Amino acid sequence: MKFQDLDQIRERNRRIVLQCIREAGTIARVEIAGQVDVSPATVSVVTGELMRDGLIENVEQLPPSAPAGRGRPKTLLRLRPDAAHAIGIKLALHQAAVSVTNFVGEVLASETIPMSPAERTPDRIINICEEQIGRMREKTGLGLDQLVGVGIGVSGCITYETGIVNWSPMFADRDVPLKSALEERTGLDVVVDNEANLAGLAEKWFGLGKAHPSFIVVTVEHGVGMSIVLNQQIYRGARGFAGEFGHTKIDLDGAQCRCGQSGCVEAYVADYALLRQAEALVGVVAIDDQLAVQEALDALAERSDAGEAEAVSIFERAGYILGIGLANTVNLFDPPVIIISGQRAMHPARVFFESLERSLKEHALAAEAGVPPIEVHPWGDDLWARGAAALVLEQFMPKNSHTRTRSQSDAMAPETPAGEGG
Amino acid sequence: MKFQDLDQIRERNRRIVLQCIREAGTIARVEIAGQVDVSPATVSVVTGELMRDGLIENVEQLPPSAPAGRGRPKTLLRLRPDAAHAIGIKLALHQAAVSVTNFVGEVLASETIPMSPAERTPDRIINICEEQIGRMREKTGLGLDQLVGVGIGVSGCITYETGIVNWSPMFADRDVPLKSALEERTGLDVVVDNEANLAGLAEKWFGLGKAHPSFIVVTVEHGVGMSIVLNQQIYRGARGFAGEFGHTKIDLDGAQCRCGQSGCVEAYVADYALLRQAEALVGVVAIDDQLAVQEALDALAERSDAGEAEAVSIFERAGYILGIGLANTVNLFDPPVIIISGQRAMHPARVFFESLERSLKEHALAAEAGVPPIEVHPWGDDLWARGAAALVLEQFMPKNSHTRTRSQSDAMAPETPAGEGG
Repeated sequence: MKFQDLDQIRERNRRIVLQCIREAGTIARVEIAGQVDVSPATVSVVTGELMRDGLIENVEQLPPSAPAGRGRPKTLLRLRPDAAHAIGIKLALHQAAVSVTNFVGEVLASETIPMSPAERTPDRIINICEEQIGRMREKTGLGLDQLVGVGIGVSGCITYETGIVNWSPMFADRDVPLKSALEERTGLDVVVDNEANLAGLAEKWFGLGKAHPSFIVVTVEHGVGMSIVLNQQIYRGARGFAGEFGHTKIDLDGAQCRCGQSGCVEAYVADYALLRQAEALVGVVAIDDQLAVQEALDALAERSDAGEAEAVSIFERAGYILGIGLANTVNLFDPPVIIISGQRAMHPARVFFESLERSLKEHALAAEAGVPPIEVHPWGDDLWARGAAALVLEQFMPKNSHTRTRSQSDAMAPETPAGEGG
Repeated sequence: MKFQDLDQIRERNRRIVLQCIREAGTIARVEIAGQVDVSPATVSVVTGELMRDGLIENVEQLPPSAPAGRGRPKTLLRLRPDAAHAIGIKLALHQAAVSVTNFVGEVLASETIPMSPAERTPDRIINICEEQIGRMREKTGLGLDQLVGVGIGVSGCITYETGIVNWSPMFADRDVPLKSALEERTGLDVVVDNEANLAGLAEKWFGLGKAHPSFIVVTVEHGVGMSIVLNQQIYRGARGFAGEFGHTKIDLDGAQCRCGQSGCVEAYVADYALLRQAEALVGVVAIDDQLAVQEALDALAERSDAGEAEAVSIFERAGYILGIGLANTVNLFDPPVIIISGQRAMHPARVFFESLERSLKEHALAAEAGVPPIEVHPWGDDLWARGAAALVLEQFMPKNSHTRTRSQSDAMAPETPAGEGG
């Protein structure tokens, strides 16, 4: 552990104030001071810097209580939407979803490009990403200097720092250097992360993160992912492999998982797991055909909601297994809240969530003291676009020239006359 | 999130310097400066405060390279062993282990008191703790003012902040207010924590924590516990219920656990689980009779090491199951290192660890990229004594009058002239 230097503390405080404004939408300086528990004068120093850097702006607003045409307008602060832009790309088996997002998370342009399995080679995918980045810049007219970078979400094991995709269902190859390859091609900063972490970041920046510094997001669709947010940071583990919840095992010699092992949560809960159980009901569905998968699952959910026994039992079991997996997670992590996101949250079968909640209560150790609340967030494609953009914006903080011209100084220094030490 | 105030930063820096000295044993100021990356002058300010507070002291030491009788001695810093003392109590089903530890973790006195099941009522246990605190003070001659407090470790779910034992195999009652009851009786500060966290703290202060800011400790004995240390902090979760690894489930409709559920890791790995499988080999052992349990398990391990098939298969299966549980933990947490502690680490059967490592590799998702190393730490009773003491010492940091007489100030303030804000 190292001493924090003053620059680190300043940057941390800048982030806190920015987050405060982001949460509020518009907010007065004095309210920020109340929330972060420092003097309004100190807040003004920070907001002055943020304004000089073009990240926030003043807006005049009448107090809501004032009658029309009367009352003195208050000066409030808000984020400048065009302070920064980022491109988000979510790579899925069957498609790449690309979007441009501004500093407040608005999607300015987006596109979804179907991909055939044959295109899932590192070279082809890097080409597709490069093409799409060009398309997005054309559509929005944004220059390179207006783009902070590109955030890419992909399923599998990713080394976050290097942006190497160690293993992913996307690629037959291992250790694909996605970040460096695309940076070389585009001249833009590229950040690569597990797709579940995009959901975590989207929640942190634009969703539940406003209310909770720590939470867990579970994404259920063609795979089962997890993002762990602790104290407003994505928890990635020692090598960046944390959150592989879908491959935690809840049954000895259980159902076969596409990872090659058996008894994984994913092997009971993911799209392909539901569909292989439902073959007698909905026929065989090609798992690469996302539209067909979605239609079949929607039909299955409808039949379950209508009370058809076989459909009910498929979702009931999936909820039961997911409940055991989440009970294990609660026993280990004790998160304050669990968010269910992804396609299953968009098109739920009623019995799935009922069964999930029952199972969680049944299998968590301290269930008498209550289990963490489960929130279902049916975000659409915006989830991924915003998450991928957040991945970039997360890292983005223009360096303030005033604080940066000082040499590295340590936090103890300001009150320590130079002569005192020795 | 709040701004850190200067006092918080100072206290954090004091802790960092103390930890630095603790890790090194003896260390020069200039080396500390190198390690924490600040100026020697700043380190001198901090060490000056720590010395005034009586926490550290100077020691003259000849450089190791100097020939005998020559060379100028260097002034190094070390912790003052008698700067603080703490009483540690580990409550187990069959006994209470009590000890007094000094600031560097030396055990000055200790005693183990057998307890009959009839004594496991809150009232009786509070009486026993009170009596034993008195005995320890007699033995060491320590006054109340020389004791920082009492750390108590107990298995089960504990609300750390309030010291309420929500659920424990120790008590038939729920929600036992152990901390407040014992504080009232003794006038000492009392901290209560899950026993596995004692192992985590012992490792953090006196063991592997020196090399790793984050790690996981798994304790295997009459139960299976886990302590999660993230960035030199015990991770307790939202309600303090994190780390209940023993009750994560790895099998649907699996072995019956003493928690009332089934398929828990503990139900295959803990002492009682091994012994109930070994009844045909070693007969029925009363699980409350710790000596008999230990003898039976030692005998079983010997027979396993001698190659007796039935004994081998019991430990092999226990290792296999523990490996699945740890693979789930690795998939979720991705810890840099896993430490196995507790009785099974003291008296291992060879096949248990072989099977465990094989199973972890087999069941972790990213096993090709390697699994976290498993270290086996056969600490004896010192583990618990030091852990319980660390629980108290952890919180202990005498308030420095110089830094505390200042009113709450924020970290941005020192360079902010009052007139600049507004």
